[in-house]
Amino acid sequence: MSKKLTSRTEDYSRWYNELVIKADLAETSAVRGCMVIKPYGYAIWEKMQHQLDHMFKETGHQNAYFPLFVPKSLFEAEEKNAEGFAKECAVVTHYRLQNDPEKEGKLRVDPEAKLEEELVVRPTSEAIIWNTFKGWIQSYRDLPLLINQWANVVRWEMRTRLFLRTAEFLWQEGHTAHATEKEAIDEAKQMQEVYATFAEQYMAMPVVRGAKTESERFAGALETYTIEALMQDGKALQAGTSHFLGQNFANAFDVKFTSREGKLEYVWATSWGVSTRLIGGLIMTHSDDNGLVLPPKLAPIQVVIVPIYKGEEQLQQISEKLDPIIDALKAKGISVKFDNRDTLRPGAKFAEYELKGVPVRIAMGKRDLENGTLEIARRDTFEKQSVNQSEVVVKVSDLLHEIQENLYQRAVDFRAAHTTIVDSFEDFKGAIKNKGGFVAAHWDGTAETEDKIKELTKATIRCIPNDSKEEEGLCVLTGKPSKRRVLFAKAY
Amino acid sequence: MSKKLTSRTEDYSRWYNELVIKADLAETSAVRGCMVIKPYGYAIWEKMQHQLDHMFKETGHQNAYFPLFVPKSLFEAEEKNAEGFAKECAVVTHYRLQNDPEKEGKLRVDPEAKLEEELVVRPTSEAIIWNTFKGWIQSYRDLPLLINQWANVVRWEMRTRLFLRTAEFLWQEGHTAHATEKEAIDEAKQMQEVYATFAEQYMAMPVVRGAKTESERFAGALETYTIEALMQDGKALQAGTSHFLGQNFANAFDVKFTSREGKLEYVWATSWGVSTRLIGGLIMTHSDDNGLVLPPKLAPIQVVIVPIYKGEEQLQQISEKLDPIIDALKAKGISVKFDNRDTLRPGAKFAEYELKGVPVRIAMGKRDLENGTLEIARRDTFEKQSVNQSEVVVKVSDLLHEIQENLYQRAVDFRAAHTTIVDSFEDFKGAIKNKGGFVAAHWDGTAETEDKIKELTKATIRCIPNDSKEEEGLCVLTGKPSKRRVLFAKAY
Repeated sequence: MSKKLTSRTEDYSRWYNELVIKADLAETSAVRGCMVIKPYGYAIWEKMQHQLDHMFKETGHQNAYFPLFVPKSLFEAEEKNAEGFAKECAVVTHYRLQNDPEKEGKLRVDPEAKLEEELVVRPTSEAIIWNTFKGWIQSYRDLPLLINQWANVVRWEMRTRLFLRTAEFLWQEGHTAHATEKEAIDEAKQMQEVYATFAEQYMAMPVVRGAKTESERFAGALETYTIEALMQDGKALQAGTSHFLGQNFANAFDVKFTSREGKLEYVWATSWGVSTRLIGGLIMTHSDDNGLVLPPKLAPIQVVIVPIYKGEEQLQQISEKLDPIIDALKAKGISVKFDNRDTLRPGAKFAEYELKGVPVRIAMGKRDLENGTLEIARRDTFEKQSVNQSEVVVKVSDLLHEIQENLYQRAVDFRAAHTTIVDSFEDFKGAIKNKGGFVAAHWDGTAETEDKIKELTKATIRCIPNDSKEEEGLCVLTGKPSKRRVLFAKAY
Repeated sequence: MSKKLTSRTEDYSRWYNELVIKADLAETSAVRGCMVIKPYGYAIWEKMQHQLDHMFKETGHQNAYFPLFVPKSLFEAEEKNAEGFAKECAVVTHYRLQNDPEKEGKLRVDPEAKLEEELVVRPTSEAIIWNTFKGWIQSYRDLPLLINQWANVVRWEMRTRLFLRTAEFLWQEGHTAHATEKEAIDEAKQMQEVYATFAEQYMAMPVVRGAKTESERFAGALETYTIEALMQDGKALQAGTSHFLGQNFANAFDVKFTSREGKLEYVWATSWGVSTRLIGGLIMTHSDDNGLVLPPKLAPIQVVIVPIYKGEEQLQQISEKLDPIIDALKAKGISVKFDNRDTLRPGAKFAEYELKGVPVRIAMGKRDLENGTLEIARRDTFEKQSVNQSEVVVKVSDLLHEIQENLYQRAVDFRAAHTTIVDSFEDFKGAIKNKGGFVAAHWDGTAETEDKIKELTKATIRCIPNDSKEEEGLCVLTGKPSKRRVLFAKAY
């Protein structure tokens, strides 16, 4: 605890890694690329889940649960999807271990317990779910089918980072089936908007809503809608995606329905997901060199109260004053921790809660006892104020809103300051290299140019923003005509 | 929907299987032994999770998340645990698929992507968690460590049944670490009591609290505390277990702490879990030949309202009366579904909600409109009553409590009628064979006798009940002395 964090300017990547560990959010495990999500990190995930789940249900979705394993023959049914994930999937080949005859006390795979068909640990569940949907859908009356699943998935990533890219991660995956193309596209767009609302209003993380280019689309999708956030180091983070899958999976799994007009037609599909990666985005949007900074709406502890006292008697006097305040805060739905541990000095506690990003800290000492006051400190700006005890509930309640707003506004300002409009490739390279952030530039619409730019600058097209204006222009690389600007950035 | 359920007396097992399918709770999947939990079944699980999670947090536990995979070398570290699960575990051996050169469009395991060390898909997480705890525990100040995980686990069962025994299932697993033996035992017992309270007060399923015999213990436990329920066919269901693990895992993973006295000691452990199996128990405790019967506290829909009308105008008149009633019910926290579909007749709707076990049904027709009344029907007894519209909120609220109570009492009575005290092996065999249920008998305490009785009657010792009185007696099989009766039954 005592050792300081590496600062962001010194080494942003190291700062992130240290912060995740020191703030007790997660750690690496004995399994390559898999993380352990520690209680404090998991509590943030629970808050995210709770809100997202509510939003999914409000938009008519129901939760269900599908198998962890995908038989190889189903996995390969939708060709593009299979191709996209085959290179990084964990495969179960046996269903039993036995004593190793050569090593006392050790086990080995039982060669006689080989599966007839290998099972893929789901990297995503389109295949197993569409194979199931086949039995659920006969008529237009069964549509739309609006399903969500909270689950773990596995993608055998070679380079992993806590939360941002792990071999196993937790996520939700929505899978919906529709009678018409339009309805499916509307659904995919609606869920993009749900994600954007969640990111902005709960995570206080502004996002650009847009569509992916063909080469950045989800394997098997006709269109991928994305929300893209900007981290403090100027790199973009893809924070959530929503896919219009056309009839690809209906075709692959033969899912047809009888329309209102009595015709047999293939079903239209979407899928959409966000994951524990969001926690990485949350950290990198707001936190500082002192530690985590959490938006109040997702903070497991919103207010921490630290008594500053000498001896039992003083602690008791302070506690007596604080008890009704704690009750009043809790009654307002505010999560409060009263830290009266006698094993740690107040200064050490302050540092701990700073590191853990608790939005509001209240301290009460001897002088406060005499004056009927309290000291309130906010995590985002470090401002402190002395407040009358009778006003504390209103003050804290207001402050939580203010912090939520301030964090969002700060991130919006940061993004504005780190979005550059360029019209030449020199400026493009300069912006990417020296300033970072989003670069809005004209692009000729070809995958070839996209690849070339990536090769030269490491920047990729994050999205074609939904609100990108039609405007005549020339591709920054090739000079060919372009109808609108797209958003480039280096990305996580 | 129209085809009737097999009755329980005709074939209990088939009745169960049909009910799970027809009530839309779950279905089998393309993966051997794995189920798909459908939205209605999952909604019950969510209600269970919500309440259990609340109870775990109230008793000081925090959620976290650990990897799905256990490296073989960790898996085999605690010998008994490894031995217990080695025979039924899914093993990941490769991390990539590639195009099959011999079959166009097909994939095969890439032989070059073989893992150096195989990964076991967790059948339970003691190994991976204790390997992690090693880094979290140094001093007595780090104890107790009270962790819970909501997760999926895989056990390669040969004979599976929806909810009751599936290769993959959802569960929670608590894992705690303590400074003293007593504290760990108290924790294990406390969680047994939490499970029992949940079973009785929420599932309306009475349970016997007891300890397992040595041969029925969890692999690696020194003591397994269990809650045992009785199903309508006279078979017992182990509904939840809580294990005192002694220092076995601390030894295997070298987890020591510095005590208050400065001594280095091994940590004491517990683990405890309940799973989606509870849904099987819920079904088999209350349901009848008409379908599911759900206790109100766990019913996804507590009240369904069906308007009985001819024509749009009448529907509108009825809806106008119902709208404020629906609002008032919802304001009381009651979950209400208003089913005004025009594609189904009221009779068909009644049958559907009966099948789905909705506790209370309200119907309102033309005559009710004239009389200012409503018809309320309860699912458990099929009783109907005409109620004044102004009284409906109070009535429904009372009725939900009454149904919850009645279901519990009915199950308690059933169990009392199906618990037999026997003192000879003839009576023992007769009771097990002809009557089923729990049989309380003296046993000489040896695994040999336990095995022999199982071989002869298929009955196993479900538990040594916590409240079993000390009483001198003679083992029903061997005539050897015994200090107390234990509870036998055939079991799921």
